[in-house]
Amino acid sequence: MRIVIIGAVAGGASAAARARRLSEEAEIILVERGEAPSFANCGLPYYIGGVIEQRDKLLVAPAQRLIERYRLDVRTRTEALAIDRANHTVRLRYLENCDEYDQPYDKLILSPGAAPIRPPVPGVDLPQVYTLRELRDADRLHAAAKHAQRAVVIGGGFIGLEMAENLVHRGIATTVVELANQILPPWDAEMVSPVADHLRERGVTLKLSNAAAAIEPAGDGVIVRLRSGESLDADMVVLSVGVRPDNKLAVEAGLAVGPRGGIRVNDQMQTADPDIYAVGDAIETHSSLDGSPTQIPLAGPANRQGRIAADNIFGRPTHYAGTQGTAIVGVFEMAAALTGFSEKALKAAGTPYEKVYVHPANHAGYYPGAKQMSMKLLFAPDGGRLLGAQAVGRSGVDKRIDVLAVAIKAGMSVFDLEELELAYAPQFGSAKDPVNMAGFVAAGVVRGDQPVAHWDDLPQLAAEDGQSEGLGRPEGLGPPELVLDVRMASEFAAGSIPGAVNIPVDELRSRLGELDPARPIIAYCQVGMRGYLATRILLQYGFNVRNLSGGYTTYKQTMAAKGA
Amino acid sequence: MRIVIIGAVAGGASAAARARRLSEEAEIILVERGEAPSFANCGLPYYIGGVIEQRDKLLVAPAQRLIERYRLDVRTRTEALAIDRANHTVRLRYLENCDEYDQPYDKLILSPGAAPIRPPVPGVDLPQVYTLRELRDADRLHAAAKHAQRAVVIGGGFIGLEMAENLVHRGIATTVVELANQILPPWDAEMVSPVADHLRERGVTLKLSNAAAAIEPAGDGVIVRLRSGESLDADMVVLSVGVRPDNKLAVEAGLAVGPRGGIRVNDQMQTADPDIYAVGDAIETHSSLDGSPTQIPLAGPANRQGRIAADNIFGRPTHYAGTQGTAIVGVFEMAAALTGFSEKALKAAGTPYEKVYVHPANHAGYYPGAKQMSMKLLFAPDGGRLLGAQAVGRSGVDKRIDVLAVAIKAGMSVFDLEELELAYAPQFGSAKDPVNMAGFVAAGVVRGDQPVAHWDDLPQLAAEDGQSEGLGRPEGLGPPELVLDVRMASEFAAGSIPGAVNIPVDELRSRLGELDPARPIIAYCQVGMRGYLATRILLQYGFNVRNLSGGYTTYKQTMAAKGA
Repeated sequence: MRIVIIGAVAGGASAAARARRLSEEAEIILVERGEAPSFANCGLPYYIGGVIEQRDKLLVAPAQRLIERYRLDVRTRTEALAIDRANHTVRLRYLENCDEYDQPYDKLILSPGAAPIRPPVPGVDLPQVYTLRELRDADRLHAAAKHAQRAVVIGGGFIGLEMAENLVHRGIATTVVELANQILPPWDAEMVSPVADHLRERGVTLKLSNAAAAIEPAGDGVIVRLRSGESLDADMVVLSVGVRPDNKLAVEAGLAVGPRGGIRVNDQMQTADPDIYAVGDAIETHSSLDGSPTQIPLAGPANRQGRIAADNIFGRPTHYAGTQGTAIVGVFEMAAALTGFSEKALKAAGTPYEKVYVHPANHAGYYPGAKQMSMKLLFAPDGGRLLGAQAVGRSGVDKRIDVLAVAIKAGMSVFDLEELELAYAPQFGSAKDPVNMAGFVAAGVVRGDQPVAHWDDLPQLAAEDGQSEGLGRPEGLGPPELVLDVRMASEFAAGSIPGAVNIPVDELRSRLGELDPARPIIAYCQVGMRGYLATRILLQYGFNVRNLSGGYTTYKQTMAAKGA
Repeated sequence: MRIVIIGAVAGGASAAARARRLSEEAEIILVERGEAPSFANCGLPYYIGGVIEQRDKLLVAPAQRLIERYRLDVRTRTEALAIDRANHTVRLRYLENCDEYDQPYDKLILSPGAAPIRPPVPGVDLPQVYTLRELRDADRLHAAAKHAQRAVVIGGGFIGLEMAENLVHRGIATTVVELANQILPPWDAEMVSPVADHLRERGVTLKLSNAAAAIEPAGDGVIVRLRSGESLDADMVVLSVGVRPDNKLAVEAGLAVGPRGGIRVNDQMQTADPDIYAVGDAIETHSSLDGSPTQIPLAGPANRQGRIAADNIFGRPTHYAGTQGTAIVGVFEMAAALTGFSEKALKAAGTPYEKVYVHPANHAGYYPGAKQMSMKLLFAPDGGRLLGAQAVGRSGVDKRIDVLAVAIKAGMSVFDLEELELAYAPQFGSAKDPVNMAGFVAAGVVRGDQPVAHWDDLPQLAAEDGQSEGLGRPEGLGPPELVLDVRMASEFAAGSIPGAVNIPVDELRSRLGELDPARPIIAYCQVGMRGYLATRILLQYGFNVRNLSGGYTTYKQTMAAKGA
C-alpha cells in the first residue's frame, strides 16, 4: 500500500501518523510545500508578537522525527501540481530546483488547507501587505513587526484579532478594519461588544462597517484608503479577511466541490474517487446538529478527519460525525467562545429558537479574583433542546463552552443543564455553576415560569426604529409595555433604559398600587436575577410581565453593538 | 401554606428562595442555629488563611436581604429540638434566652447539615482542638491562627488539606495526620501522590497511615501523641476526619436513616412522612450511575435538592437524579478533581472495569506556561462506557473533569470522547484536547489496538510482593515479561523501572533481532505515547506486547503512593 498525503500540517500529519500505527508495511509519502511539516500554525501570531520567543517551538513534529519515528517519506518544499486519476499518479515539483516527477499512489489524501483570501483591492500586492499562512509568512511578519510603528489589520475575525493583539505586544499602533458591523462575525454582535471595548482599552482602533478601498505606497510605508473616505498611514498591512479552500488540485482532477469551494467528501472522508480522500480546511463537511453543509477551518476537526481517512484506507469503517463549530479566541485578557449555532445562523436557517443571557462570575464571588462573564444560550422554544451557546469574559469561558459543547453533542436540553453536577470549590466555580444558572433561566422560560423579553421588545427601541410598538408585538395589544427597573435607586440613577420607571424589587410588594394592572410590564435589573424574582412576584399578583433577559448588562452590550 | 425549614445554609436557603418564587402566599420560616443564614461555608478555610480578607464577604445572603427580598421569617440562633409529627409542630429554642415554643408547620424541610466527627481520642475536647463547621468556628480558628506557630491537622481530606494550606498561608508550621495510606481518600492513591509531594514542597509534614492516639495539654499548647509513637507539639489542632449527618431530629421523630446515618428520602426529597422533606449533607442519596446509596456532603447537590423539595411542596413533580460524586479541591498551586466512580469503589463493588492514564499538558506545549496534568479514565472493558475519571495538576483540571462529568451524565463511552469537539486556541487547550487524548488511548484499549498493562502486571513488582510472576498472570504463561523502555538512552539513564531493557522507539524497527519473539513484552515510555507506537510496531511484527499505561510517570506516582 502506497499512500501519498498532500499537505503535512494538522490533517495530513495526523493521517500519516495514524496510517503508520495501523500499518508497518505501508509506504507513506508526506508532501509539504512549505519548509517544515506539522508546524504550529495556531501559534504563528504569538511568535510574531514575541509571546512565543523561540521559533523552534513552532516545529511541533520536526521532519527528522517523522522520518525516524514514523518512517515517513517526508518531502518538504514540494508542490503537488496535478492528479492523474486514471494512472494513479500525482505530479510533484521540488521547489528548490523545479524538478518535476510523477509519483504513483494507491491512496491519495488531500490535506492542502485553505489560503488567505486576497481581496481585489488596488495595492494588495505591495510588499508592505502580508498574509499569514505558513512559517515563512510568520518569518516575514516577525521581521516587519520589529520596525513597524503603525499597522492596519484588514479583517476582524480570529486571525485578525490575534494579529492585532500581537502587534500591540510589539508596541505597534494598530487599526483593525472590518467589513461587518461587529468584530468576530461567527458570534452574535451583542456578545462580542465587550471584546471590542477591551480592544479599544488596549489601544486598538476599530473601524467597523468599513473596508479598504485601496492601498497606496507612501515612502517606506503605505496609505490605506477606506471606503468611508478615511486614510490610514501604515508601515505594514495584514490581510485576514478569511480563507478559501485550496481546492485547485481537486477541481482540476474533476472532483466535486461545494458552493463555497470545499472539496466534497462522504463521512469516511472519501471524495467521489474512492482512492482519493480529503481532510481539513480544504473540505466541505456537515453540521453535526442538522446535517447542513459547512466549512470549518479549525485544527481539531482536521486532526480527527486525518485519523478517519487513515482508518478507512486500512479497512476500519470509522465515520466523521460532523462539526458543531466549537471555537475560542483569546483577545488580550479576554476570551470569546462558542459552540453550536449562533442566533444569526438560526435566523438565517429559519429554525425556531429562544434565547437567554446570564452574567455570572467565573467562580464564587466571595473568593478573590472573581470575574463576570456573559453567556448566551440558544434552545428550542418547545422542549428546550440546546442549539448553541456563546460565552465572553476574562476567565472560565473555555470551560463553560466545553461543558456546553458536550451537552449539545449529547443532545441535551436546558433541563439537563439544571442537573449537571460540575466540580465546585470556590476557586473554580460556584455551587450553582454558570452553566447550571443558564439552565435554570432557560428552563424557567421553557416551563413558562419566567416569560422573557429581549431588547427588540422594548417599546423605546421600537419607537427609535420608527414604530409605535415593540417589534415583536402584534397590533391591537393595548398600551406599550411599562419598562420597570427593579434595581436600587442608586443603580437606576447611574444609568437606565430610557423611559423606565424604578421600583426596587425589595419595595415591589408594598408598591404594587403604583402599577396599572392593565398595562403589560417588562421588568429588568442588572443581570436578570432580581428581574426574575420581580417577574415571579408580579405574575402571582396577576400582572402581565416579562423579564428582560440579561438585564441592563445585555441591554448595554446590545446598544454598544448597535452603535458601533 | 406554612413551610418551616430547619437549617439555612445551601439546601435550606435554596429551598426557601425557590418556595418564595413559587408562592407569594406561603409563610416561610427559616430556622438557623448559627448567627447568619446562607453563609459561604466553602469559603471558611480561606477566611482563616487570610485569602478572603473581609469576614462580611462570607455572608452571601444576609438575613436582612432574605427578609426584604424573599419575605422570609428568618430565625437565627434558633435550634430545633423535636418534631411532633402528629401535631405538625416543631419545638424551637431561641439560644439567646433559651425560650422554647412549638412552631406549627404544614410542610417541614430538614436541612440540618452534617457535623464534624470528633474521634474518641483522649484530649479531643481540649480548648486548643478545633473543628470547622460554622461561622463562629471560623472566627475561633481565625483568632487562633494569628498566634499559632505549630498546628496539627487530623484528617487529610478536603477540609483537612484546605486548612493545611491556609495555616501555611498564616506562616504556621503544619502537620497533617491521616489514617489512610494516602491523602484525599475519595481519589485513588496513585493519582494524588503528586499532591502529597506538592504539600511537602510547600512545607507541610504528612503523617500517613497514622492517627492521633491522645492529645495532652503542654503549657499553652498541646502534645499530639500518634499511634506510631511519635509526638507532635502544637499550638492548635484541627479535627477534619469527616462529617456525620446531623440526623438527631429525624431519628427521634422515627424517620428512617441509612447505615451511615443519612436521612432516607425518595427522589422528591420526601421522607417516609409525606409532610417532611430532607435535603443536603444530612441525607442519604443515590448514585446516578448505578443507583447505589451514597452520602455526598457537597454544596451543589444540596442546592439542587433544596430546589426540588420546594418544587414538590408546590405540586411540581421534579425528581433528584442522584449524584455522580463530582468534586474538586485546590491545594496550593495544584488541584485534584474527580467524577463518577474511583477504581477502589469499582473494586469494592465488583464492577468490571479497565483504566488508562494520560499525562497531557493543559494547553498547547508551544504556548508559554503549559503545565502537565495527570488523568485517569475508568471505563467498562466491554463497550467502553465511562465509569469515572480523575485529574490532578496545576491548571485546567477543573475543565477536564467538568467535561467528563457531562460525558458520564450523558452515558457516553470512550469512543464518544474521541469525537468531542472542544474549544481550541493555544492558550486554552490543544487541537487534541486532554479529554480527546484520554479517549483515543482508552478506545485503543477497548478496540484491542493497544493492549495495556499496569504497574501490578510488572514482573519486578510481583517479585517484590513475594510472587514469581505478575499478579494478574495465570500459571503456566511461560517466562515473565520483558520490560522494555523505549525512551531515549538519556531518559533511561536518569531513572527507569528496575530490570527494564532500553531500546529507544526510533531504533526499535532496526533492533527487533534483540528481542525474543517467544517472550511477552511490557513496553513503556515517559507518559505512554511512544510506548503506544512501540506497541503498534511490535504487535505488527508478531510480538505479544502491552503498553504500560501512563508510562514511567504513572509508575513513579504509583511507587510514591505505595512508599508513602
